[in-house]
Amino acid sequence: MKVYGDRNSGNCQKISFTADFLQIPYQWIDIDITKGESRTDAYLRKSPMGQVPMIELDDGRCLAQSNAIIRYLAQGTSLLPDDTFTQAKIDELLFWEQYSHEPYVATSRYHMVYLGRSKDEREAWRVERGEKALDLMQRLIKGRMWFVGDSLSVADIALLAYTRLAHEGGFDLNARPDVKAWIMRAEMALGLPPAGN
Amino acid sequence: MKVYGDRNSGNCQKISFTADFLQIPYQWIDIDITKGESRTDAYLRKSPMGQVPMIELDDGRCLAQSNAIIRYLAQGTSLLPDDTFTQAKIDELLFWEQYSHEPYVATSRYHMVYLGRSKDEREAWRVERGEKALDLMQRLIKGRMWFVGDSLSVADIALLAYTRLAHEGGFDLNARPDVKAWIMRAEMALGLPPAGN
Ligand SMILES: N[C@@H](CCC(=O)N[C@@H](CS)C(=O)NCC(=O)O)C(=O)O
Ligand SMILES: N[C@@H](CCC(=O)N[C@@H](CS)C(=O)NCC(=O)O)C(=O)O
Repeated sequence: MKVYGDRNSGNCQKISFTADFLQIPYQWIDIDITKGESRTDAYLRKSPMGQVPMIELDDGRCLAQSNAIIRYLAQGTSLLPDDTFTQAKIDELLFWEQYSHEPYVATSRYHMVYLGRSKDEREAWRVERGEKALDLMQRLIKGRMWFVGDSLSVADIALLAYTRLAHEGGFDLNARPDVKAWIMRAEMALGLPPAGN
Repeated sequence: MKVYGDRNSGNCQKISFTADFLQIPYQWIDIDITKGESRTDAYLRKSPMGQVPMIELDDGRCLAQSNAIIRYLAQGTSLLPDDTFTQAKIDELLFWEQYSHEPYVATSRYHMVYLGRSKDEREAWRVERGEKALDLMQRLIKGRMWFVGDSLSVADIALLAYTRLAHEGGFDLNARPDVKAWIMRAEMALGLPPAGN
């Protein structure tokens, strides 16, 4: 398997977190999105969506969308338990992450880390929605070890990617102690160095 | 099963399209989001995400996120073929719809239909991204009957919901003839009246 990605992108890191945890071998191919490398004709032939991450299986079939990729890789493993309702609750968080978390928390980080804006230059409406997403995570994880069921799942991996980097987007997790504890737990389970919130 | 929804919301219509097609019986409970009915304490106890659609199973378990719901309802039916890679390609489009289509095409419609803004009052950046999403749909569906595989799937249902209402958000599908033909095909397969693009 080939993984086309940007090592600094949380969406792309979801793939390495999942594949490394499951010991799935892969070749990582660096794509520089700031140079338009995900929008070349050759890339668009593999994935018309024109974004990273994307995986290419050994037989040439390609798949985009971070959460679709990790869900696919996790089939039949502890990261995606067999029970269909449990899977549906995992999907619920995967869709929530893409709709209500990533566009605010990750995009604020993108503006600061990739575009060099200061914390004060962030868009107020985006920050407000990011804060709300992090607040909801605090309510959901309080009293629990993992977001769905009793063990680490792809829902944790999807949520971890940008939540552990939230400080790089100007967000402060100190008022969300259960989110912070969960981040440490998930980083440890995945063998990641602390991202430092 | 109970479905909590707003009949005018495409995200909610995905659930009725799917359940009606699969002949799954349900009770529809109208939620007026403009009156904050999805944000009451009672509602948040069922779904902390505070949005419609949401389903409540007969045993009381609840599930939110339109695409998680239709994927769950479609398990074991023709709308979600068994093959795992086919399912992953369906997921790819479900995530793309929530990330790259709905926030632009549906939200522009929301501004016009719910908030009463005119076509000219739409946000330029949002319109531009919506146009791009519709262009990509045209490229993807050209020469095909359905978005994934050889038959109607939940990917078609998710994409149909707001694409057939795109004109209500000020978008014109005339330059995307294959999208228009696919809409008619999908509406017919689902027994829906033409939405009128
Ligand atoms: N919904 C997509 C989002 C992917 C995404 O936003 N990718 C960004 C980098 S994090 C990208 O490729 N941007 C370059 C571009 O759009 O041209 C996913 O989850 O994979
Ligand atoms: N990602 C969610 C989006 C749901 C959504 O945006 N629901 C809107 C109506 S279409 C809503 O409930 N808005 C009221 C609110 O947020 O308070 C899904 O696919 O179900």
